Amino acid sequence: MWMEGAEDSMQVWKSKIASKGDNMRQYEMYELEFKGKAPVGSWVQIDLRAEFICDGEVTAVKGYYAGEGIYKVRFLPRQAGVYTWKTTGIFEECGEINCDSAQENNAATHTKALEGTGHGIVQTEGMHFVYQDGTRYTPVGTTVYALAHQPQALIDQTFETLAGSPYNKLRWCIFPKSFPYNENEPELYAFEKDAEGKWDVHRPSMEFWDHFEKILMRLERMGIQSDIILFHPYDKWGFSELSMEENLGYLDYVIRRLSAFPSVWWSMANEYDMMLKRGMEDWYVMEEYIAANDPYHHLLSNHQCVVVYDYSRKNITHCSLQIRDVDRVKEFMKKYQKPVIYDECAYEGDLPMDWGNISGFELVHRFWGLYSQGAYGTHGEVFLSPDDVLWWAKGGILKGESTPRIAYLKELLKEADGPLVPWCLKEYAKPEENKPLDEFLKDVRRDNPVANLYYYGKGPERDRMFVVPEYAARYESQFFLQYLGHTAPGVVTLHLPEDGAYRVDVIDTWEMTRKQAYFGASGKVEISLPGKEGIAVLAVRF
Amino acid sequence: MWMEGAEDSMQVWKSKIASKGDNMRQYEMYELEFKGKAPVGSWVQIDLRAEFICDGEVTAVKGYYAGEGIYKVRFLPRQAGVYTWKTTGIFEECGEINCDSAQENNAATHTKALEGTGHGIVQTEGMHFVYQDGTRYTPVGTTVYALAHQPQALIDQTFETLAGSPYNKLRWCIFPKSFPYNENEPELYAFEKDAEGKWDVHRPSMEFWDHFEKILMRLERMGIQSDIILFHPYDKWGFSELSMEENLGYLDYVIRRLSAFPSVWWSMANEYDMMLKRGMEDWYVMEEYIAANDPYHHLLSNHQCVVVYDYSRKNITHCSLQIRDVDRVKEFMKKYQKPVIYDECAYEGDLPMDWGNISGFELVHRFWGLYSQGAYGTHGEVFLSPDDVLWWAKGGILKGESTPRIAYLKELLKEADGPLVPWCLKEYAKPEENKPLDEFLKDVRRDNPVANLYYYGKGPERDRMFVVPEYAARYESQFFLQYLGHTAPGVVTLHLPEDGAYRVDVIDTWEMTRKQAYFGASGKVEISLPGKEGIAVLAVRF
Repeated sequence: MWMEGAEDSMQVWKSKIASKGDNMRQYEMYELEFKGKAPVGSWVQIDLRAEFICDGEVTAVKGYYAGEGIYKVRFLPRQAGVYTWKTTGIFEECGEINCDSAQENNAATHTKALEGTGHGIVQTEGMHFVYQDGTRYTPVGTTVYALAHQPQALIDQTFETLAGSPYNKLRWCIFPKSFPYNENEPELYAFEKDAEGKWDVHRPSMEFWDHFEKILMRLERMGIQSDIILFHPYDKWGFSELSMEENLGYLDYVIRRLSAFPSVWWSMANEYDMMLKRGMEDWYVMEEYIAANDPYHHLLSNHQCVVVYDYSRKNITHCSLQIRDVDRVKEFMKKYQKPVIYDECAYEGDLPMDWGNISGFELVHRFWGLYSQGAYGTHGEVFLSPDDVLWWAKGGILKGESTPRIAYLKELLKEADGPLVPWCLKEYAKPEENKPLDEFLKDVRRDNPVANLYYYGKGPERDRMFVVPEYAARYESQFFLQYLGHTAPGVVTLHLPEDGAYRVDVIDTWEMTRKQAYFGASGKVEISLPGKEGIAVLAVRF
Repeated sequence: MWMEGAEDSMQVWKSKIASKGDNMRQYEMYELEFKGKAPVGSWVQIDLRAEFICDGEVTAVKGYYAGEGIYKVRFLPRQAGVYTWKTTGIFEECGEINCDSAQENNAATHTKALEGTGHGIVQTEGMHFVYQDGTRYTPVGTTVYALAHQPQALIDQTFETLAGSPYNKLRWCIFPKSFPYNENEPELYAFEKDAEGKWDVHRPSMEFWDHFEKILMRLERMGIQSDIILFHPYDKWGFSELSMEENLGYLDYVIRRLSAFPSVWWSMANEYDMMLKRGMEDWYVMEEYIAANDPYHHLLSNHQCVVVYDYSRKNITHCSLQIRDVDRVKEFMKKYQKPVIYDECAYEGDLPMDWGNISGFELVHRFWGLYSQGAYGTHGEVFLSPDDVLWWAKGGILKGESTPRIAYLKELLKEADGPLVPWCLKEYAKPEENKPLDEFLKDVRRDNPVANLYYYGKGPERDRMFVVPEYAARYESQFFLQYLGHTAPGVVTLHLPEDGAYRVDVIDTWEMTRKQAYFGASGKVEISLPGKEGIAVLAVRF
């Protein structure tokens, strides 16, 4: 029906991407395509809107100009069923279309959906993430900031590397990067320049966006979420110093064009606070703009260098932190009550800069420290190289030692039947093993400095009192993980529920070995350890 | 002269310890000995005082009762020359005696004084330590808390171990220790019990103190300073809960008896704040008492568990911290302007407790981190053992990996012609390499979060801003040390003075290897590093 009535200069096409029969597919991008003349004036702020209606639920989206007289309206159906749609503005069309359920599709093709594809967008659920269809998503990210700005051969090599890696989230930028080890000029930029040689945000470079989307789609098909970085300060071209009006124009186009990709996350910036000519109000305006215009409410966060963004803001879905100290995880959990991702906790590598020269062991330690508290981490790698191809910006191959260990951790976490929450190690201990500090201090002199601090103290010194960081997490009473981190005990005591039977294993996180300590343990269990760093203990109920 | 007039019941003896001819020796303990009847009442608060006068300088000391009718007056001469002395109280005597200079003594015997012997007591000089004769003292401590309370064979073994170790300061206790792995009852206690079975501080156990002194003397002869711990909370006998009057009685005896040993330091307590029935005022009273009664002003400090003692107090000579984070060194230096010793920075070992299970690598890292900032550290070792002999409390043998590396560090520090102070790595850099943050931020919006923090911020977040911890120290322009700690750079840049010629070495602190990178470097020098943790760079002027 929607093919009919198309005028000569105005055609409607089924999506090339989503077409399977004539139907839309739940959780997959669908496209309407129209042909006309190039817009007069802004190529961004075109008057093309659409509504998709299913079961009385209306989703309003905006179309975008794709160049060569092609206009597209993209839509991401969240539910299966019969949809009606209608466009208004420069193309006024309507139609009806079925949307197949993802489940049926998967069944029909006799293939299990790839990890991360066919489940819809990732959303938060408490301190964790799930796809729209309820499938659990455990982010294990990596970083290739300037991926889109590298030669195709390098991009292809990066994809090969990613295919063999555990990473299911990638932080990458729209704008090119100017920074040490990032001297190469990209082939394409997001905008064309105007007659005066200034970037014209109203003239998106279609070549660039087609290129960018190809990467995005390729990542999506591999089950890799794109944590798209909308702004960043490492800039010699002027993209970081556009006016606010220009910024919003740019965001308008990004949202029209990319928001129907289910794998998209919005990272407002990398090191937003280092864009020294932007104030907080600007960020709030952009945040509101994205939240108001993205019809699907993709994950949205912002990433700092020094000053942590206010993750308590209602549009912000999760913490996207640059923090090295994994002992601060619970501070962020408590403060924001949202999922905590350490999107930068320093990179494995050998740069002279302190953010880029932690050992593989240390990065693996940070990952274990994070996941063993119910938080998440993002990998990055920066080894000095004569060709200046450092993974964290350009991709290529991985040279470090952390990635196989991160893969090992990711595999192991699959044994949990659900997402992990911090586990207070004394939670299942008997009362006599669990004396509260109050009791310990009740008979002592209040002017003793420790008692005084405990009873009258304030601030971090009080908070730190007797608090030993615990890298321990559990899923209900099924999965218990304690990671010993940089300590090297020869023995550890676990307090497991009395009413379960657990297999207890000792894991060497670096050697990736696992030895059974008990089969059928419950209650208080003493476990011998090898007395070295990087050991974990895992108890899984059977 | 002073032998004459001695009554039958009252004899004066030359010191057994210091006698060399008839003279005293500078910096060595000298003893007057008197024989009489045992004191009536307190064996502590006896009326025996003495004055030693040289060149018009009067030192007043108190005598002590040594048991069996023997009374002693001990004196530590600080200067060579002719002394007159006179005792008052239960023995009224006087005499004249020469004191040989330490220098002459050393020359006469054609032997160089052992490290730490014959130089007088250790005192502070700025942020560092020197013996009274001006010789530099670089503390490299270890910990055997309950040394005095172990069987003699174990004590002997401990001395053998110490003899082969780098340690020149020992933290050890007067009172016995009750604590996990410390279950053995000592043979001797500091006091006898009264008729009611209560400790009587007025009846020192002469057997105990003779035993204690033997250890003290033996350590002294090995050049090991005794950081004597006067109180501690790990107690089942009641020593930690004496009344304040009893405490002062005990301190009176300790000072009368031990203060003429040149190797003595007073550590008021280990974990003073864990003595939960003592308030701060008590500690200040004891501190004042020690400072007022010790004629020599031995080094005096106090060691916390949680609440750092107020090291700004005038009697306190240095910081004796329990802190694990070596990045806080400069905080303490700045705050107290006194030498900083991390007397506990966690122990190498494999205990389940977090204070006792860091790896050898980590302890060596902390030592390098401390000394590379001009601070000092104290070692301790706690490996689980079927015989419960853990070095940190009982001594025995060392099983860990840190000690040879600490010895290596100590040797290397001897190449410095003087004590180290923190070295700001950009100190000798050219101005263009050393742009102040002010300049960087001057043109930016003040409502940018980073600029805002910089210009208007307060507290730790502001303080931490852009501050990368530097483990770097130097002695004037002769010795420059940078330690890279847990970072693993493949290259580092040093800015050395332009007007010197330096040998630059790359040191692997764990492997204890040293490779020359430059011979004759000056100014800005780029040095290739192996890209692993625990590397240091040393530049020494030639």
